[in-house]
Amino acid sequence: MDVGTFVGLIAGVGLMLWAIMSKSELSNFVDVGSVVMVIGGAMCAAMISFPIRNLLGIARVVKKTIFVKSGDPKALIKDLVGYAEVARRDGILALEDTLKGVDDTFIVTGIQMAIDGTDPEVIEQILVSEWEAVAERHADGKALFDNLGRYAPAFGMIGTLVGLVIMLKNMDDPSSIGDGMAIALLTTLYGALASNLVALPLADKLAVRSKDELLLKSIVIKGVMAIQSGDNPRVVEQKLLTFLPYNQRPTPEDAKSEAA
Amino acid sequence: MDVGTFVGLIAGVGLMLWAIMSKSELSNFVDVGSVVMVIGGAMCAAMISFPIRNLLGIARVVKKTIFVKSGDPKALIKDLVGYAEVARRDGILALEDTLKGVDDTFIVTGIQMAIDGTDPEVIEQILVSEWEAVAERHADGKALFDNLGRYAPAFGMIGTLVGLVIMLKNMDDPSSIGDGMAIALLTTLYGALASNLVALPLADKLAVRSKDELLLKSIVIKGVMAIQSGDNPRVVEQKLLTFLPYNQRPTPEDAKSEAA
Amino acid sequence: MDVGTFVGLIAGVGLMLWAIMSKSELSNFVDVGSVVMVIGGAMCAAMISFPIRNLLGIARVVKKTIFVKSGDPKALIKDLVGYAEVARRDGILALEDTLKGVDDTFIVTGIQMAIDGTDPEVIEQILVSEWEAVAERHADGKALFDNLGRYAPAFGMIGTLVGLVIMLKNMDDPSSIGDGMAIALLTTLYGALASNLVALPLADKLAVRSKDELLLKSIVIKGVMAIQSGDNPRVVEQKLLTFLPYNQRPTPEDAKSEAA
Amino acid sequence: MDVGTFVGLIAGVGLMLWAIMSKSELSNFVDVGSVVMVIGGAMCAAMISFPIRNLLGIARVVKKTIFVKSGDPKALIKDLVGYAEVARRDGILALEDTLKGVDDTFIVTGIQMAIDGTDPEVIEQILVSEWEAVAERHADGKALFDNLGRYAPAFGMIGTLVGLVIMLKNMDDPSSIGDGMAIALLTTLYGALASNLVALPLADKLAVRSKDELLLKSIVIKGVMAIQSGDNPRVVEQKLLTFLPYNQRPTPEDAKSEAA
Amino acid sequence: MDVGTFVGLIAGVGLMLWAIMSKSELSNFVDVGSVVMVIGGAMCAAMISFPIRNLLGIARVVKKTIFVKSGDPKALIKDLVGYAEVARRDGILALEDTLKGVDDTFIVTGIQMAIDGTDPEVIEQILVSEWEAVAERHADGKALFDNLGRYAPAFGMIGTLVGLVIMLKNMDDPSSIGDGMAIALLTTLYGALASNLVALPLADKLAVRSKDELLLKSIVIKGVMAIQSGDNPRVVEQKLLTFLPYNQRPTPEDAKSEAA
Repeated sequence: MDVGTFVGLIAGVGLMLWAIMSKSELSNFVDVGSVVMVIGGAMCAAMISFPIRNLLGIARVVKKTIFVKSGDPKALIKDLVGYAEVARRDGILALEDTLKGVDDTFIVTGIQMAIDGTDPEVIEQILVSEWEAVAERHADGKALFDNLGRYAPAFGMIGTLVGLVIMLKNMDDPSSIGDGMAIALLTTLYGALASNLVALPLADKLAVRSKDELLLKSIVIKGVMAIQSGDNPRVVEQKLLTFLPYNQRPTPEDAKSEAA
Repeated sequence: MDVGTFVGLIAGVGLMLWAIMSKSELSNFVDVGSVVMVIGGAMCAAMISFPIRNLLGIARVVKKTIFVKSGDPKALIKDLVGYAEVARRDGILALEDTLKGVDDTFIVTGIQMAIDGTDPEVIEQILVSEWEAVAERHADGKALFDNLGRYAPAFGMIGTLVGLVIMLKNMDDPSSIGDGMAIALLTTLYGALASNLVALPLADKLAVRSKDELLLKSIVIKGVMAIQSGDNPRVVEQKLLTFLPYNQRPTPEDAKSEAA
Repeated sequence: MDVGTFVGLIAGVGLMLWAIMSKSELSNFVDVGSVVMVIGGAMCAAMISFPIRNLLGIARVVKKTIFVKSGDPKALIKDLVGYAEVARRDGILALEDTLKGVDDTFIVTGIQMAIDGTDPEVIEQILVSEWEAVAERHADGKALFDNLGRYAPAFGMIGTLVGLVIMLKNMDDPSSIGDGMAIALLTTLYGALASNLVALPLADKLAVRSKDELLLKSIVIKGVMAIQSGDNPRVVEQKLLTFLPYNQRPTPEDAKSEAA
Repeated sequence: MDVGTFVGLIAGVGLMLWAIMSKSELSNFVDVGSVVMVIGGAMCAAMISFPIRNLLGIARVVKKTIFVKSGDPKALIKDLVGYAEVARRDGILALEDTLKGVDDTFIVTGIQMAIDGTDPEVIEQILVSEWEAVAERHADGKALFDNLGRYAPAFGMIGTLVGLVIMLKNMDDPSSIGDGMAIALLTTLYGALASNLVALPLADKLAVRSKDELLLKSIVIKGVMAIQSGDNPRVVEQKLLTFLPYNQRPTPEDAKSEAA
Repeated sequence: MDVGTFVGLIAGVGLMLWAIMSKSELSNFVDVGSVVMVIGGAMCAAMISFPIRNLLGIARVVKKTIFVKSGDPKALIKDLVGYAEVARRDGILALEDTLKGVDDTFIVTGIQMAIDGTDPEVIEQILVSEWEAVAERHADGKALFDNLGRYAPAFGMIGTLVGLVIMLKNMDDPSSIGDGMAIALLTTLYGALASNLVALPLADKLAVRSKDELLLKSIVIKGVMAIQSGDNPRVVEQKLLTFLPYNQRPTPEDAKSEAA
């Protein structure tokens, strides 16, 4: 669960409500037709832009990416080093039991192939192409939000143009001009909010989460390949730690004693 | 037939009609001259931007890319593995009969060259340069739609400027100001719709379809080259499956038994 | 002569005239001072942006690129294969006579160096650096039009600001406000037209033409080098055909018989 | 302490105050609600865009990058050459004493590993991955400011739209129109200032500072590796001087005598 | 002295003055406060964006790049070939006398190192890193002008917003509305002019000049290295001529006789 996303969204909406209600009434800012225009228009554009299968898959990826907490690389490295120790001590077949308690299908698939004696090149190829498929699904998710962030303001402007034409055609009653124009502006307001408070920031967050998750998968690939080749658990750890920045690693003293 | 494109377009147009007709009359939003200005202007810009031969070829590519359903990579791989089995069992010449039932001229050309004993390098070179030509035709198609998506709003604005100047020159009759301005805004509205509901989303969709089709062609090239070199059908399959993401592949158990 | 460019320009101008004259008088849209402001301003910016020698050279390149029809790659390949046959049959010196009827100085220079026994590396180096110089001249031409396409609207806006300030300073006579504002808007209109109907589309067309012409030059370079090394004319043809897309090549049957 | 940043910020704010107070009263330009809208909205967008841990870390990096003066590469090179002399003269273990007076943990870590006899490849790998982590933290900092520079004007426009709708709904009292519109424009003004006077220039400055600091770290890495391999201090100096531009180096005469 | 820059600037300013004075009075367009706002604001942003040392160095680079005429590559090549002839005929030490009359410190430094018998690798490294430092100084200069071209319109808009708020707060006197708005628009006008007539075109010109000057430096580096290695003057010439486009080179006949 990504706290920042929810706090940011709720605070942003609260901010808007406070800004409106401190000086006016909320009802002045609610127009169902305008909402339909902006959100509906942007969704139509998205349906034309992307294949339907992508749209469905994207929803799932987005949900998973935002709600599921991404793992901790240090814990993952510790786990993988543990597997390497088991394999070193009891033979690689002993990992079969260990795998039973593991949830991550990516790790299970990789190690299972190693246990089965699959050719290392084939293992790496399969894991890497899964990595690439995940990266592409994430990129599709980001592309969808960037797309919505681009079309929501465009349909906001389209709605305002429609409202302005309606208003200009009914100028006989001057008292209605203010009202007509206020409603016309609402679609632009909705489009700007949908884009700047929701779509574009979520696109950015998806990019960050994708990077985190792909780092984990990269660590797994390197770890599985090291386990498969029967590396010493210390060597496995050292190889995997290179994925971590300095300040998330063991202290130099540890590194020294390990390298000794 | 790409369902999303049609649903998106029809829903988008329906949305506009609903938005207009629930508060005004459609006739207020129809002005043939404004349509001619925006669409005509954007087309003139496209005629200057691209050679005529491209414009004609592009129409064909676009039609094909949107209306023809792109093939299924898994079925294609199955077919190619089948050809490899025939070639392995009965000799490559036996493929001549098999080819008679195949529609895809790209596959036919490739395998025919293999049957004829054409030099492998020449086969690959010819197929790759066709791949590149297809990629370029798709890119030309996308460029045209991006171009229209850029010039339609520009000519929308130009039309509005013309309308505003006309209105400002006729300010003697104040009652006509609203009407004149409403008409002036229509070109901007048309330009925004042509760009955001049609041209730009179609450009995005073309890019996706192009990627799909080029993937199929890449699989064919790798498959033909493997068949030509007399690879074992299992090896052919394994080579081709690397083009597919993980979740579209046979399960690891299958992969294991194949690798065994 | 590139027909599309002229048809597009004339149709675009005709469209504007029709749009204006069907609802107003042309005289309302003509203001010499505004034309001078927009075109003059954009040209001043171009003079500061580019060295004068570039501006002069660019005019020549643009004229040549738009008015001279680019050659046909298939005819060029046929010519080069013909030269290869002469060289093969009668010795490379026999090409001296053949060259007399050739207009393209790029071909003449290349083959003349081959006849003179110039070192192949030097030949290639000289031809390639000419290729690069042509590419750069074309890129300079495109940059100039992109530049005008960027500055024309900017000076259009500057002109409108000047017009607005003048109008606002003369608000004593309300009847002149409409007129003043109409004139102020003309520079923005001119800038938008100069950019979207002329400068930007021409920049795109220049890029396409440049690609075509550089392809021809690439074919010549590869052809001259093959002739110089005494390649078999069939081999020369095969090498050069790789520059062409599939559907512009001889049919596979031809390719087969040639490869046999 | 980066003087330019402070002078620029203070001069910019002073300029605004002068511009306002010479023609109006400051109170006309202060509206707490508008400030909250713009800054709060941009911050909500940032919270959704970036993980919370990044936001916290970024504050630290920014503070350090702006307030801490970046070191002088020439002095650093002199120091490193000094360490190389000690190592050459008294053995690498003699550096242990020297390190006690050194503040820079990056240098200390590197040399300590060299003293401990850590494998050179491991040393380099650890230092390089720290370099990359620093580069990424700096890039995160720049991304945050670019983000604020993009969202502040967006929420400024959103605030203005809200203000306009409120104003248009209260047009019964014409005397309040000017006031309502003035307040509506304040959020756009705040957004433009926050973006153009603070966020975007700071993003640029962070990029420059990052480049400076990473250069220092690159020099340290090369220096530590040279000391570790027992290079002659003259060779160490020559290697490190290649990081400096010409005019910050010893004169050619010096270089000559050293190379002799 | 770059004539185009001055003619363009003077013609552009003249154009503005003519446009203004033919329809209004210059005094309507002069407002010192607005100038201070736009130029001062953009300069504050630049001070925050770049380190002060860069700003100072940039002024020098810009002056030199715009006012100093860049050399002629052909003359430079002739000079370098001349030095190669001296070195070949009288030994490299004989160049010491020749150098006395040479102004270009880059050439002097390079050849002096060759005379002194400095290691060729060291010579090249020092010259190349100076090349890179020059390239970076030029890029800094371009970045500053791009920066001003971006911030000047931004502060123009900020000034207009300030002016509009002041005007809206003083709507009691309707006769002053026109005046207030005219003054408010002046900052936008100044910002657009500063950006489109000065900053952005100068940034483009700097890029062109930088390319020219770096080409000269590249020729010097290649020339010095060839002289150092004792190449035949003909070979030196041929190597250096590859930097020139075709139509600036000796004719093919010359090339032929030289290659013979």
